Amino acid sequence: MTTMKVLSLPKVYQLLEPGPVVLLTTASGGCSNVMTLSWHMMVEFAPPLVACIVSSADYSFTALRATKECVIAIPALELAPKVVEVGNCSGRNVDKFTKFGLTPIPAHEVAAPLVAECFANLECKVVDTRLVNKFNLFVLEVVKAWIDPEQKAPKTIHHQGYGRFVVDGETITLDSKMP
Amino acid sequence: MTTMKVLSLPKVYQLLEPGPVVLLTTASGGCSNVMTLSWHMMVEFAPPLVACIVSSADYSFTALRATKECVIAIPALELAPKVVEVGNCSGRNVDKFTKFGLTPIPAHEVAAPLVAECFANLECKVVDTRLVNKFNLFVLEVVKAWIDPEQKAPKTIHHQGYGRFVVDGETITLDSKMP
Repeated sequence: MTTMKVLSLPKVYQLLEPGPVVLLTTASGGCSNVMTLSWHMMVEFAPPLVACIVSSADYSFTALRATKECVIAIPALELAPKVVEVGNCSGRNVDKFTKFGLTPIPAHEVAAPLVAECFANLECKVVDTRLVNKFNLFVLEVVKAWIDPEQKAPKTIHHQGYGRFVVDGETITLDSKMP
Repeated sequence: MTTMKVLSLPKVYQLLEPGPVVLLTTASGGCSNVMTLSWHMMVEFAPPLVACIVSSADYSFTALRATKECVIAIPALELAPKVVEVGNCSGRNVDKFTKFGLTPIPAHEVAAPLVAECFANLECKVVDTRLVNKFNLFVLEVVKAWIDPEQKAPKTIHHQGYGRFVVDGETITLDSKMP
């Protein structure tokens, strides 16, 4: 974790806009938990706002709603088997950090931990809950962001359903006027 | 367009969950428009619900809010140059379908057109606007979905900012319990 560097908040969207599978950590009552999440999107560039769906059936839901804090951790391809295993079980029954050998590291602004093995970690606070009851939709503000420059050109994974993931391939650059 | 087939609605999430750049069409006052969109996510499997951010600065915003209808059209890699050009200009000043050689086709359930060149088209109706004023966030229900089986194994693109896109690479399959 000594290699984690702070990332400028206006650059956060470049991590989430491509739609990677991510991990989401929470902390409640002295226990940390981690879940797998694909349903998220950017909402605003700066301050970076992110929306995500955390089902009320997920064990993390209660902690997220109560503490209004979480970390979005972005894993590279090498972590894909662990990411799937994290998604296959519930924090109700197991300490997933221990079971899957993921390393929780204290965050700066939230109680939820960073995940040392991920190439980026975004400390988030819940800023809107109006769509939680109906859609399980939380709006988050990223208040601190970390990137691990030791993980060079990480490839992310994108879920296509039923355990099938498409991995980042080539990159192309076109003359866009968009940030 | 004769090759477009209806897609079962519960399969829609498999198209959007990976986070592709998409086109969004609207129709208002007899005119159709199309914009480029990366900020979207799945909200529910069935009926398929999708959230997206359409900025109030976008010309499409007024039509989407007024008509509560749109089509999300998913382009493959081959359309990337046109997708970027669509994003570089506004429907205020130009008929983008004509200018970029995209073919609008009547949808079944909404006034907004399908895009013939895209491998999938999702007819959508706005079902929640509570977060529009504050976040430009619309919740949509997909009411009809189309897929073009003639476009085999389409590769999608994912925006990383400033015209840099990562293209779908290899696919991997892991033993996930998730749909």
